[in-house]
Amino acid sequence: MPIDQNKLKEKNIDFSKILDKVRVFAPATVANMICGFDILGFAVDEPGDEVKMYRVAEPGVRIRSIQGDDGRLPMDADRNTVSACVKMLLDDLGILQDIGVEIELIKHMPIGSGLGSSSASTVAGLFAINTLLGNPLTKEELMPYCVEGERLACGHGHADNVAPALMGGVTLVRGGEELDIVKLPAPKELYAGIVFPQVDVPTRDARQLIKEKVLLKDAVTQWGNIAGVVAGLFTEDYELLGRSMHDIIIEPSRAILIPEFYAMKEIALSSGALSFGISGSGPSVVAVTKGREVAESVTRKIQEHLSTNGIDSYRYVSAVNVEGPKVLPFND
Amino acid sequence: MPIDQNKLKEKNIDFSKILDKVRVFAPATVANMICGFDILGFAVDEPGDEVKMYRVAEPGVRIRSIQGDDGRLPMDADRNTVSACVKMLLDDLGILQDIGVEIELIKHMPIGSGLGSSSASTVAGLFAINTLLGNPLTKEELMPYCVEGERLACGHGHADNVAPALMGGVTLVRGGEELDIVKLPAPKELYAGIVFPQVDVPTRDARQLIKEKVLLKDAVTQWGNIAGVVAGLFTEDYELLGRSMHDIIIEPSRAILIPEFYAMKEIALSSGALSFGISGSGPSVVAVTKGREVAESVTRKIQEHLSTNGIDSYRYVSAVNVEGPKVLPFND
Repeated sequence: MPIDQNKLKEKNIDFSKILDKVRVFAPATVANMICGFDILGFAVDEPGDEVKMYRVAEPGVRIRSIQGDDGRLPMDADRNTVSACVKMLLDDLGILQDIGVEIELIKHMPIGSGLGSSSASTVAGLFAINTLLGNPLTKEELMPYCVEGERLACGHGHADNVAPALMGGVTLVRGGEELDIVKLPAPKELYAGIVFPQVDVPTRDARQLIKEKVLLKDAVTQWGNIAGVVAGLFTEDYELLGRSMHDIIIEPSRAILIPEFYAMKEIALSSGALSFGISGSGPSVVAVTKGREVAESVTRKIQEHLSTNGIDSYRYVSAVNVEGPKVLPFND
Repeated sequence: MPIDQNKLKEKNIDFSKILDKVRVFAPATVANMICGFDILGFAVDEPGDEVKMYRVAEPGVRIRSIQGDDGRLPMDADRNTVSACVKMLLDDLGILQDIGVEIELIKHMPIGSGLGSSSASTVAGLFAINTLLGNPLTKEELMPYCVEGERLACGHGHADNVAPALMGGVTLVRGGEELDIVKLPAPKELYAGIVFPQVDVPTRDARQLIKEKVLLKDAVTQWGNIAGVVAGLFTEDYELLGRSMHDIIIEPSRAILIPEFYAMKEIALSSGALSFGISGSGPSVVAVTKGREVAESVTRKIQEHLSTNGIDSYRYVSAVNVEGPKVLPFND
């Protein structure tokens, strides 16, 4: 799915129909879906990031304000991932010189949470500019720009967060060079109970812990599990999902960065969760459950456990978000 | 799925309803389904093996005759896999001393073909005795005996051939200790064009060539492909199946045992096959196609190519066999 600039240049933007402003929410995402390292992921209803985008007279793309980032994100429109991606898209559409856009970025989730924070912002920004312009691009056409945003933000163009954030639901990202994204069904009763412990685990460190080589027999177990997850999603077989959603390859390396990981896992599995693991590269952890109630009770117990160990945490419970980004009304 | 002898002892066999004789066909199978080493497999309509089973007065299990094995299989009922499995089942049912059974085994496919030859015979035998006894066991209950047969025949209890041979269709075998078999859908237009070159590749040698460790990045590509295959089976997306059905881990090691492998692959892919690879541990190769015609033409071209290189071969074209073993009428 390479970016085809020529195709975009052919899209005629009707300037009389460009909106004055738009407000967009894009969801957080649980990359890997526990056993599908670098290929599976799903979107959740909360948390998520928000972009307010305004059409202004002066051409160019600018960041007007950023909330919720503790001052960590750049205001410079060429360095900020959201605005940089919006600029790239406008440039490919051939209208960067002809339109003025200002962005307010409202982050509802912390950076470095393992919940696809940068992806949610990028997807919100790109969905917002596309909505503002009257939806000239399909989601499939927006995807390469989202991946490019991920490359700017993290240094590598993995799509395992941006794919579910943009497409919604559960996504499979396969293939190396050519981006090949397959949308998988999300059983209605599949819930995610997420706990984000207030500890810092940079994605870079989490990646460095992973071994370059794996035992073939472990890889076979893992791909059997992945196949079981995909089959379970299609057949809504929650037991199969529970049996299959185990990561024997990445989790053992990364869990050591997350305090109380195995205690939390024990709490989740003994309290009825189908599965438990690391969200993305952590430190957020996720209990996958059948139904909201189990997710609520598991995350509460985990939060209590962390609290007694002196660790603050956020807690989110949500079904799989099947919609992806959405336009919100302005309150002001 | 361990064998639970106690449960079997509770099954009441009605001796007045045991049949006099039964004739059963069980299908050949394509283990691995190209990219799913040790976990995926599917059954085909031909070739397959046949068992004729007769109830006789004298208690015990005996092999009456074997055809098509070139004298390679043992006639001794304790060493022959088919009769040994039948004995084991009768013993677990607690009726080994009470019933006499004689077996004619007719092999329609060569041993060491990579088409699940031993599995087809074992499954035919076990399906035959179960039918003869009035079907006291479900297919799920028969499965552990089939796996045990595979252990006797090959020295390891892999289920990737017996699972599709017994269940029919496409099967996923996941998990290590506990046997967990998941039946996957088989799109109607999915065909297999199989060519069995007349060269000898013992499974043992084929296994020894495989590396113990693999690069994680290759494993990730492979499990993305496997997930793509499972999704493609459910959505009947032939293009996704074609994009996904590639083996970058096992094939490079095993292909060197199969003369003209890459030439055959080139012929298949340039003639419209969705995918091409090794069936099981080879030397049979399989072109997966949409529709019968492509499978016919691909296998013909491959056979011609082998012939000009002085290699004889068999050729089989079949849709995925969704039924598994079946009872045939007696012709005599």
